[in-house]
Amino acid sequence: MNLLEKLDAAAAARKAQLPEGLAAFGIPIDESYSATEARIGERRVLMLGTNNYLGLSFSSECREAAHKAIDREGTGTTGSRMANGNYYGHRALERELAEFYHCRECIVFTTGYQANLGTISGLAGVGDVVLIDGDAHASIYDGCILSGADVIRFRHNDVVDLEKRLRRLGDRSRNTLIVIEGIYSMLGDQAPLAEIVKLKNVYQSTLLLDEAHSLGVLGETGQGLVEKARMIDEVDFITGTFSKSLCGIGGFCVSNHPQLNQLRYISHPYIFTASPSPATIASTRAALKLLRDGYSLREQLWRNAHQLYSCLKETGYCLGPEPGPIVAVLLDSPKQALTLWNGLMAHDIYVNLVLPPAAPEGKSLVRCSINAAHTAEQIGRVCETFSKLYPAVTQ
Amino acid sequence: MNLLEKLDAAAAARKAQLPEGLAAFGIPIDESYSATEARIGERRVLMLGTNNYLGLSFSSECREAAHKAIDREGTGTTGSRMANGNYYGHRALERELAEFYHCRECIVFTTGYQANLGTISGLAGVGDVVLIDGDAHASIYDGCILSGADVIRFRHNDVVDLEKRLRRLGDRSRNTLIVIEGIYSMLGDQAPLAEIVKLKNVYQSTLLLDEAHSLGVLGETGQGLVEKARMIDEVDFITGTFSKSLCGIGGFCVSNHPQLNQLRYISHPYIFTASPSPATIASTRAALKLLRDGYSLREQLWRNAHQLYSCLKETGYCLGPEPGPIVAVLLDSPKQALTLWNGLMAHDIYVNLVLPPAAPEGKSLVRCSINAAHTAEQIGRVCETFSKLYPAVTQ
Repeated sequence: MNLLEKLDAAAAARKAQLPEGLAAFGIPIDESYSATEARIGERRVLMLGTNNYLGLSFSSECREAAHKAIDREGTGTTGSRMANGNYYGHRALERELAEFYHCRECIVFTTGYQANLGTISGLAGVGDVVLIDGDAHASIYDGCILSGADVIRFRHNDVVDLEKRLRRLGDRSRNTLIVIEGIYSMLGDQAPLAEIVKLKNVYQSTLLLDEAHSLGVLGETGQGLVEKARMIDEVDFITGTFSKSLCGIGGFCVSNHPQLNQLRYISHPYIFTASPSPATIASTRAALKLLRDGYSLREQLWRNAHQLYSCLKETGYCLGPEPGPIVAVLLDSPKQALTLWNGLMAHDIYVNLVLPPAAPEGKSLVRCSINAAHTAEQIGRVCETFSKLYPAVTQ
Repeated sequence: MNLLEKLDAAAAARKAQLPEGLAAFGIPIDESYSATEARIGERRVLMLGTNNYLGLSFSSECREAAHKAIDREGTGTTGSRMANGNYYGHRALERELAEFYHCRECIVFTTGYQANLGTISGLAGVGDVVLIDGDAHASIYDGCILSGADVIRFRHNDVVDLEKRLRRLGDRSRNTLIVIEGIYSMLGDQAPLAEIVKLKNVYQSTLLLDEAHSLGVLGETGQGLVEKARMIDEVDFITGTFSKSLCGIGGFCVSNHPQLNQLRYISHPYIFTASPSPATIASTRAALKLLRDGYSLREQLWRNAHQLYSCLKETGYCLGPEPGPIVAVLLDSPKQALTLWNGLMAHDIYVNLVLPPAAPEGKSLVRCSINAAHTAEQIGRVCETFSKLYPAVTQ
């Protein structure tokens, strides 16, 4: 088979598995009304599947900042940070993120995907080891591939399994990068950070924590799991994204290790890409201020998360291990998940569908993402609909 | 050595090589005044090192489109194209790019880097072969690594060497993706497309052409080398970027093969990243219109390119093989290149410095990038300065 025939074969296999399932991916959003509502075709739909955790996508401060940047600096930088694309705003955002985490160094990347690719492939290389959680995001996995290091997965959130693998590595544990996430995107659960820090100290490894889904969500000022667990001095590198709670596009890595700065000279995903647009940088800087001061937004977010989690639990659904802004409903078959997804859409509620092999342990997921802008009334409507659909889904 | 000690060692090696050279990378741009001028510290500098080929970064049409998108749709989509980030604008831009290339399919990616990563790793896999030009951009190389395919380099623009390698592959040539570029970023020269198309047909391979630096620059409507060489029906896949002539951020792949669409279901750099911001999509759509109708901008760009190329040639500098928007001055040593770069900066002219191993064949480059907004007077000033510096550089 040539390259095109292989794609045909893969497409046919996908179609045979669950023909109707494909329509759930890449749903066309025709108009975005607010942080919680959008138009899909002729329908006004409640968005319960965005990563807009603080509900800031339409914030006037962020939009105003973006407008000003476009007027002052144009639509794009047309160059890499290492060439002509190193604007004042990029450096200012790096300073502000470093200061936010009380860290010495920060590098801003053009996407969150590239932040993980660039950090992991910059830190680890051929002969090194990267130990990743079984539920690691694809950007972490791709960063490992790009690094050329040996990749080992440990069982999701299982510190016993992690220790077993570190022990087996012998001396190589000192050349090992452990990569974990603040909140995992699949089940919405948090990493056991304190225990993992203990292990990384014992085995003299290096620890990278990805706060993509926990930035703005955990910790008093929203730093993420690192703040909630009071572990900022114990984590070597923290990555995060601008495209979730900060409503921009891009990503970053912060660290107290001065060596982070060396990635600017070796990391392809940092060097060989144009720098973020002035508008994105400006809106992200404004959003970071709102995030830091967003204590009450976080409170609202968690109220909403608890409301949804407990009512779905009561209804009888099998959920991820703990409440949080991602509430994952675990289903035994893709067919069940699709029935639930279709039922919610029929009631004008958009959530995300995750089918195997993307979902862990052969499960299928209907994944809800809550944000601070959802009203108690909206969540109530969601709960009611889930409850109404329960018999049809579980029959 | 642990991971951090390795970074220290690499940094020390870099510093030992050319300590003053490091300052030439990531120059802080303090203010961008226009498509050709910026402030660096207290100096007003002529920018001869951007990828702003048509000079559209401050175009009123593009800025107006971006402003409207921010008002209507907020600062970011907070989701992947495959989840909640598939807005009307993303689909419209895909239709417009497909129509621009008279192609059936188009996929928009969040960065140009990810367009190459996502297309190459989506098309080729373990057991396949990717044949890349020796001067290939890092995004092409990284896409190969991510794909897991065997990577073979052929000598830059050398069709004899390419044929030799295709012949050696035997039957595997049918599972081979050949990747070339319209204009190469190092020397500014163009691929011998017609000859490469002949080979790919003989050996039944698949051809991907990256028009990153040639989009907007070559061909009557600016499609790139594919249009100049009248080869649109012969090239299987074309990638390109929004961050050069289109002054946005993002990238795309177009093709007449319906299989391109399958990449939406398998390509990590497409799936696991947030979609481009509404502002970026809107400004890129506006820029694409200007690019299509930009015949006179292209004429001006080429007049400027010829003016610079011929005057540097007359002065005695060793240049890339042909004139174009990238005019590369080849120097024998990093020291010479740095002398020239420093001399230009002392005269308030910014260009890009490329040192080994980034530059081909052990050379060092001072690389000028021309755009349509440069005036004859500005280019004249550049020529004069290069001429003045010639004795000191070549002594």
